Amino acid sequence: MMRGTAMRDGASAPVHRPIPEEVPVALVYNGSTQAVMMATPHDLADFALGFSLTEGIVTEAAQIRDLEVLPHSTGIEIRMWLSPGRAAALARRRRMMSGPVGCGLCGIDSLEEATRPLPRVRDGLQLKRAEVTRAVAELSSMQPLRDRTRAVHGAGFLQPGHGVTLVREDVGRHNALDKLIGALAAGGTDATAGAFVITSRVSVEMVQKCAIAGASVLIAVSAPTALAVRQAGEAGLTLIARTRDDGFDTFTHPERIKDGDGLHVA
Amino acid sequence: MMRGTAMRDGASAPVHRPIPEEVPVALVYNGSTQAVMMATPHDLADFALGFSLTEGIVTEAAQIRDLEVLPHSTGIEIRMWLSPGRAAALARRRRMMSGPVGCGLCGIDSLEEATRPLPRVRDGLQLKRAEVTRAVAELSSMQPLRDRTRAVHGAGFLQPGHGVTLVREDVGRHNALDKLIGALAAGGTDATAGAFVITSRVSVEMVQKCAIAGASVLIAVSAPTALAVRQAGEAGLTLIARTRDDGFDTFTHPERIKDGDGLHVA
Repeated sequence: MMRGTAMRDGASAPVHRPIPEEVPVALVYNGSTQAVMMATPHDLADFALGFSLTEGIVTEAAQIRDLEVLPHSTGIEIRMWLSPGRAAALARRRRMMSGPVGCGLCGIDSLEEATRPLPRVRDGLQLKRAEVTRAVAELSSMQPLRDRTRAVHGAGFLQPGHGVTLVREDVGRHNALDKLIGALAAGGTDATAGAFVITSRVSVEMVQKCAIAGASVLIAVSAPTALAVRQAGEAGLTLIARTRDDGFDTFTHPERIKDGDGLHVA
Repeated sequence: MMRGTAMRDGASAPVHRPIPEEVPVALVYNGSTQAVMMATPHDLADFALGFSLTEGIVTEAAQIRDLEVLPHSTGIEIRMWLSPGRAAALARRRRMMSGPVGCGLCGIDSLEEATRPLPRVRDGLQLKRAEVTRAVAELSSMQPLRDRTRAVHGAGFLQPGHGVTLVREDVGRHNALDKLIGALAAGGTDATAGAFVITSRVSVEMVQKCAIAGASVLIAVSAPTALAVRQAGEAGLTLIARTRDDGFDTFTHPERIKDGDGLHVA
């Protein structure tokens, strides 16, 4: 709860508002910081695993040998130790200064690094129209932090015939999706068996995280960017946006969406 | 415009939706990339200048001696050349691996770097309640890109007695504010003479950018995080959020807000 002054209808009154926390979280691999992200301090082990996967630092959960969450006065440190093979790969990547790290890469090389091709997602998943429409309401009903604060994003996993089965929340939409991806991996759930549902807009990073995790359908409440649509098309991903009670827009690969209510799959 | 399939009310129909562009933008100083940001490709010189200021790479516009915007097939490169003093400072900073760059800093040091104290903003600015409330509608009426696409953020400059006088837009809320800060600096406008108005939530980075640019009031449509409120309080900044037609919440330093309509300042 945070104290403030409500200045409404010409009057001033003290108020206590429930607002979300946000803390600096340092993601540290084998003793060296990879990134500091501002995040909601819940489900941080999921966050660290999801970030490690979507950033390509590991390709499966078991490659993180040890993970500790350490609170400091200035924020939270997540200290991870990688398997020897992945530790060597990360050290190589750091030596090559791959990625936009302010360490010498020229502009053209940095742009190429930022737009590298995505893996192609698998065919086969089928979703009914009605379960796509319902998914957004289901996600909303599974967001306790948003119920209290109105100011956080959510990411959910929709399993055909079973609705939204897992949700993670964060003040940042990228973090919410990374937490979901980490939670699925930690639980041994195959992300290719379902769709991701997000409360936010679809910038290209959301498509990239989805494709890297292997989910073939991304359902969003709000609109995509043009680059997100192009990359979704190239990765074979079904991109659904502007989802409302009466339906949705499908920008790429509509073949995964079928008529029907999706209520009776075994 | 982007082609899609509207699946609404049980029917499917082809649609063309206006959606915003998003491109990778490499910010390159003296031949070396500092960051690649996904941004809306408008007002990119403002963006580069604002980013340079809020990241502390320069402290005034004149320290960027030359700036070129170069389109490539993979994105847009903004090539900047700094004054000798700032170029040396940036080289020193890079050698010290300051900031979260994946180059060897440990977790605790990285967290301290990410939460360094903000400059204290100046006293003296006074705003009337009614002009705060009006500012959000004024900002909204000055967002041509949002009118077309419904999916971009805006940041505006509110001058006491004159309303919102300058607006910049971007798919990213941080970028929109950096563009505004850059446009003010490029035009020689003193940011301390007004308030910033933003369409988004208030994460701590928005407070940091505001304080570094020197604006003493930040007015947001949506809610703040707890860390944003704490840092705004420490920096002496007036943080206003949840702004609606009937008023707003003031979380810090309400003394800058006075009764009245603010319509008759000379």
